Amino acid sequence: MRTVREQALAAKQAKAKLQQATTMQKNELLLEMADRLIAAEAYLMEANEKDLDNGRTNGMSTSLLDRLSLNKTRIEAMAEGLRQIADLPDPIGTVLSEIERPNGLRIEQLRVPIGVIGMIYEARPNVTVDAAGLSLKTGNAVVLRGGTAALNTNVALVGVLHGALKACNLPTDALQYVEDPDRKSVDELLTANGLVDVVIPRGGRSLIQHVVKHATVPAIETGEGICHTFLDETADPAMARNIVLNAKVQRPSVCNSLETLLIHRDFATREWPELAKYLQEAGVELRGDARAASIAHGVTPAVDEDWSTEYLDLILSVAIVDSLDEAMEHIRNYGTLHSECIVTENDEHAIRFLNEVDAAAVYHNASTRFTDGFEFGFGAEIGISTQKLHARGPMGLPALTTVQYRIHGNGQVRK
Amino acid sequence: MRTVREQALAAKQAKAKLQQATTMQKNELLLEMADRLIAAEAYLMEANEKDLDNGRTNGMSTSLLDRLSLNKTRIEAMAEGLRQIADLPDPIGTVLSEIERPNGLRIEQLRVPIGVIGMIYEARPNVTVDAAGLSLKTGNAVVLRGGTAALNTNVALVGVLHGALKACNLPTDALQYVEDPDRKSVDELLTANGLVDVVIPRGGRSLIQHVVKHATVPAIETGEGICHTFLDETADPAMARNIVLNAKVQRPSVCNSLETLLIHRDFATREWPELAKYLQEAGVELRGDARAASIAHGVTPAVDEDWSTEYLDLILSVAIVDSLDEAMEHIRNYGTLHSECIVTENDEHAIRFLNEVDAAAVYHNASTRFTDGFEFGFGAEIGISTQKLHARGPMGLPALTTVQYRIHGNGQVRK
Repeated sequence: MRTVREQALAAKQAKAKLQQATTMQKNELLLEMADRLIAAEAYLMEANEKDLDNGRTNGMSTSLLDRLSLNKTRIEAMAEGLRQIADLPDPIGTVLSEIERPNGLRIEQLRVPIGVIGMIYEARPNVTVDAAGLSLKTGNAVVLRGGTAALNTNVALVGVLHGALKACNLPTDALQYVEDPDRKSVDELLTANGLVDVVIPRGGRSLIQHVVKHATVPAIETGEGICHTFLDETADPAMARNIVLNAKVQRPSVCNSLETLLIHRDFATREWPELAKYLQEAGVELRGDARAASIAHGVTPAVDEDWSTEYLDLILSVAIVDSLDEAMEHIRNYGTLHSECIVTENDEHAIRFLNEVDAAAVYHNASTRFTDGFEFGFGAEIGISTQKLHARGPMGLPALTTVQYRIHGNGQVRK
Repeated sequence: MRTVREQALAAKQAKAKLQQATTMQKNELLLEMADRLIAAEAYLMEANEKDLDNGRTNGMSTSLLDRLSLNKTRIEAMAEGLRQIADLPDPIGTVLSEIERPNGLRIEQLRVPIGVIGMIYEARPNVTVDAAGLSLKTGNAVVLRGGTAALNTNVALVGVLHGALKACNLPTDALQYVEDPDRKSVDELLTANGLVDVVIPRGGRSLIQHVVKHATVPAIETGEGICHTFLDETADPAMARNIVLNAKVQRPSVCNSLETLLIHRDFATREWPELAKYLQEAGVELRGDARAASIAHGVTPAVDEDWSTEYLDLILSVAIVDSLDEAMEHIRNYGTLHSECIVTENDEHAIRFLNEVDAAAVYHNASTRFTDGFEFGFGAEIGISTQKLHARGPMGLPALTTVQYRIHGNGQVRK
C-alpha cells in the first residue's frame, strides 16, 4: 500500500496530464463514469453489503446505516449528478481580466485548476463520486479520504471510476483513495504541503475542527450554521410565519436551517403566541428567554448554551429583543457567519441589516434554506464555506479553481 | 497591557463601526494619517533613535540598521504611500454578480471587508504604515505585530495614526499593535480563531514557515521565489541577454528576481559563452551543471542544493536542457510557484509553457521582475501570494476583501 505522501505525489504528477484535457474530454470522462456506475450496480452493492455487515456488527445506528447504504436509486442519483456536472460550463481558461500596460506588456488573468485537492469526509459514499466528478471537471487531481465505515464501498466506487479514466486515456493517478483506516492517514493528508494544494473537510463539527487545528495545507472551513431569523416590528405576520416555519421545519437536519428566532418586542406581543402555536403544531420544541416564555404557552426556559447550539433538529431557541441593534448584537455574539435573515417591511432596517451583519449570506424576507449551490443556480456544490478566504457561501465549480497571470511581452525589462 | 486576544476582540468590535465609514471618510482618514506623520517627524525620529541605539548595542548589522532607520525622506515616502492608497478606487461595495432566480429571489454578490486582519512582519517600519493604510482603506480592522527591533518606532507610528483615527471620529481600536516582544504573542495572534479572520506574514522564509505551521487562523503564504528563465532554442539572443541581465542584476534581493537560468542545448552552444561573460561583467557568480560549465569559462560546478536555493544575491545557477519538456520538468521540481519565464520566438512553445507551468505568473519574453502590484497596475501591494487559495500573485486592495451574498425576497420559502 502506498503512503499518503506517495499517493499525493502521484496525484501531483498526474495533474500535469489532466490539466491538458479539453473540456470535451473531461465531459466524456464524466459521462463514462456515470455509465460505468450504472453498469457496476451488482458489484457496488456487494461491496456495500460488506460495510453494512460490519456496521451492524459494530452496532451502528439505523440512521447511519441508512446513510451508508446503496441501492439502485442512489446509484442512479450518483450517475445523474455526474451527468449534471458534465453539463455545467467549464470555468477553466476563463479570462477574468486582461490589461495592457504602458510598456506594452499584456497581462491576462485566467482561471486554472488548483492542482491537487484533498477531501476528507464521513459516512455517505455519494461524496466519493461527487468530489471526484467536481474535481476532475475542473482539471484537478483529487486525494479522497472517506469514513472508515464506508471503506469497501468507497474503494469499489473508485475502482469503477478508475476504469472510466483508463477508458478515456486519462491517468488513473488523478483519482486517489486513501485506504489506511488509521486516523494518522488523515493527518498525513492535512500536512502534505507541496503536494496537496487545499484540503476540504465535509462532515460534522469535530471533523472540521480537527482539520482547522491540524492542517498546514490551506483548508476551507465548511458547514456549521447557527442561523438566525429576526422578525422586526413591521414584519408581515403571514410572511414571517411562512419563513420561520420553512426555515425551521422543512429540513431541520441541514446547516442552513433556522436555530434561533429573534423577535422585536412589539411584534412579539402581537404575534408570538400564535406563531408559537404553529411551530408547536409542527412538532417544534420551543426554548425561550424570559419574555418569550412569558408571552406564549409551552415555551421552556432557554439556558446560555442554547444560543450557541446548532440543534439540527426540531428545536428552536427564541429571544425577544428591544431593537434591530439588539438583534444584530445577538447575531454578532452567536452567529457562525453562515446565513442570517431579517423579515421586515421597513426598508431602512433591511438595508442596515444587510450592510452590517457579517455572514456568508444575508436575507431580507426569504427563508435561509436557500443558501445552497443548486438554489443559487450554480448547478453543483462542493460545500458551503463559512470562512472568508477564497470562497464564501455555497461553493460551485469556480471555488475549485485558482488564477494565474500570463504575461505576454516582446523583450520588456524593468527600469 | 491587553492580551493579544483582548486586542483582537477590541478590533473585532471596532470593525463594525469602521465598516460603515464611507469611501470619502476613509480617504479623509488616510490623508489625515499622512499629514500627521509629516508633522510628527521629530517625535518619530526620537523613537526610532531608541531602536537604533538598541540595535547598535545588540550588534545589529549595518544593512539591518539601515532597514530600521527613519529619516525625513522615508517618512515622506510613507505619507506619500498613504496618499496613493487614498487615490485608489475603493473595492468595497462592488457588485460582482447579480442574478434573479425563477422564484423571484434577487441574489447579489458584493465585495465586503474581510473583518480583522493580522499582520506579522519584521524589521522595516514602513510596513506598519502600509498595512494600516491598506487595511483601513478596505474597511478592515488590523492587528499588527512587527519585529521587536522596531518596537519603539512602530509604537510611535501607531500612536500618530491613532491621532488621525480620533480626529476623523473613527475607532482607534480598529488599529491594534501587539507590543509584547515575546514570540508567544505571535502564536496567540496565529490562533485567535473567531476574532482574527486572516493572518498575513511578511518576511523571510523562517517567519513564513512558522506561520504556515502554527496558524489555525487562515493564513496567506507570501514571498519565496525561486524564479526560472528558460532560453529556448529559438530565443532572440539580444532579447535573451536583456531579460536575463535585468531579471538577475537589476535588484537581486527581491523575490521576483532570477535564480536559475535554463538554456536549450542548441542555444547554449551558440550563445552561452557570450552571455556568461556579460553576467560575469555585471558581477554575477555563475554555478552551472556539467554542460554549462564546459561551454563557458569561469562557471563553478553547481551542487544539488543550488537548484533549490533562493540566493537573493548576485549568484545564478545555470542548467543546460535538451528540450522544452526538460525545462518544464526542472521548474516542476524546483519552482516555488512564483514567476517563471520562457524566451522564445516559437509561439507553440510559448503557449505550451504558459499553459503547463504552474506558477502565479508565467511570462513569455519579459523579465520576471514585473511580478509586482505596482507594475501590474494595482497601485498598491500587500504582498505576493505564492499559494493558490484566495489570492495568487501580487495582492492589491481586492485581496483584502471577501464577498457576501445578499438575498432580496418577498416571502420566498423553499419547496
